[in-house]
Amino acid sequence: MKTQRRGLMIVLSSPSGAGKTTLTRQLLSENQNMAMSVSATTRRPRPGEVDGRDYFFVDKNAFSTMIEEGEFLEHAKVFDNYYGTPRGPVEESLEQGKDVIFDIDWQGAQQLTQAASDDLVKIFILPPGMQELEKRLRSRAQDSDEVISKRMSKSEAEISHWAEYDYVIVNEEVEVAMAELTAIVIAERLKRKRQLWLNPFVKTLVQGG
Amino acid sequence: MKTQRRGLMIVLSSPSGAGKTTLTRQLLSENQNMAMSVSATTRRPRPGEVDGRDYFFVDKNAFSTMIEEGEFLEHAKVFDNYYGTPRGPVEESLEQGKDVIFDIDWQGAQQLTQAASDDLVKIFILPPGMQELEKRLRSRAQDSDEVISKRMSKSEAEISHWAEYDYVIVNEEVEVAMAELTAIVIAERLKRKRQLWLNPFVKTLVQGG
Repeated sequence: MKTQRRGLMIVLSSPSGAGKTTLTRQLLSENQNMAMSVSATTRRPRPGEVDGRDYFFVDKNAFSTMIEEGEFLEHAKVFDNYYGTPRGPVEESLEQGKDVIFDIDWQGAQQLTQAASDDLVKIFILPPGMQELEKRLRSRAQDSDEVISKRMSKSEAEISHWAEYDYVIVNEEVEVAMAELTAIVIAERLKRKRQLWLNPFVKTLVQGG
Repeated sequence: MKTQRRGLMIVLSSPSGAGKTTLTRQLLSENQNMAMSVSATTRRPRPGEVDGRDYFFVDKNAFSTMIEEGEFLEHAKVFDNYYGTPRGPVEESLEQGKDVIFDIDWQGAQQLTQAASDDLVKIFILPPGMQELEKRLRSRAQDSDEVISKRMSKSEAEISHWAEYDYVIVNEEVEVAMAELTAIVIAERLKRKRQLWLNPFVKTLVQGG
């Protein structure tokens, strides 16, 4: 049976240190038909970053024009730089039946909800506890106490928006969290409203085809 | 972490022969925390049937009283007999955090939707094709062509209500269908609105607990 499904827009948000990057990488590696959304940014490329893979690097004029022409699903200014999700590549993937993963914060998730709620699946990853989160932040970086403390309060702000998401995963063990994330993706694909390709098939069934 | 979740009401509907009984049995055997809903009926017990396990066997007066007192989540008259789902045992299971599975048709599903939509997860199982369905019906029973033909038109009537369900599974291979059914159950449990026990936990997180 030929499935002609439209892709999902999968938003993963979490405080940093809750394991989102690991889960995203594994989800992508286990699913052929899935792509990471690539943001546009006005900041300069860092060594090793590739245009079109890590970011679409554009200048401020180009970014402004894109805003004016409604080309962003969501965008934000962070310090002196702009970041945004261009609509075109996302729409192209969805139409090809590819799921697109968005690594964005609660503000981006809110904008996406207004721009494209039908395709959206919003998942929040919670840490098992704040001490565990701090331990993870400390173990992976050589940051000062001040930087860690700033990250922790940013994490609290992010967590305070957890109720705006469709699903919540508590990442105690990464294998369990990964299985849960996979189950959500499978279930969302099975929603009747997302299986419109079944309409003609069911028609053949009730006509005794 | 202690989870105090409320159970799900899982409705499985399908035309007969689409594999629902096999899937239901396997789901129950793989999940400790799941129970089959037991209907009340006015028909007489058949040999081997146990009261309270297969059905609650009641007389017509008792059934009428139960209808009047609103004790049924759904009920229907089939030929001369009444069938219905008593509310009490279901509510008890849900409060204990047990998922309850309902093997009911589209009419029962419609009544349940009005009675208890928040806890409800409605799944429709489709056969891969009507020829396959007829083959399955013929292989499992020694019914006459006339009986088979009646069942097939009843199947078509049932399938015509597929769009009233939240999820649709096409049962081509039972292993795949089983994995899909399991994914739906896991995902529904992860819905934010079904994880209210997380509220106090998140409070400890954002207070830096």
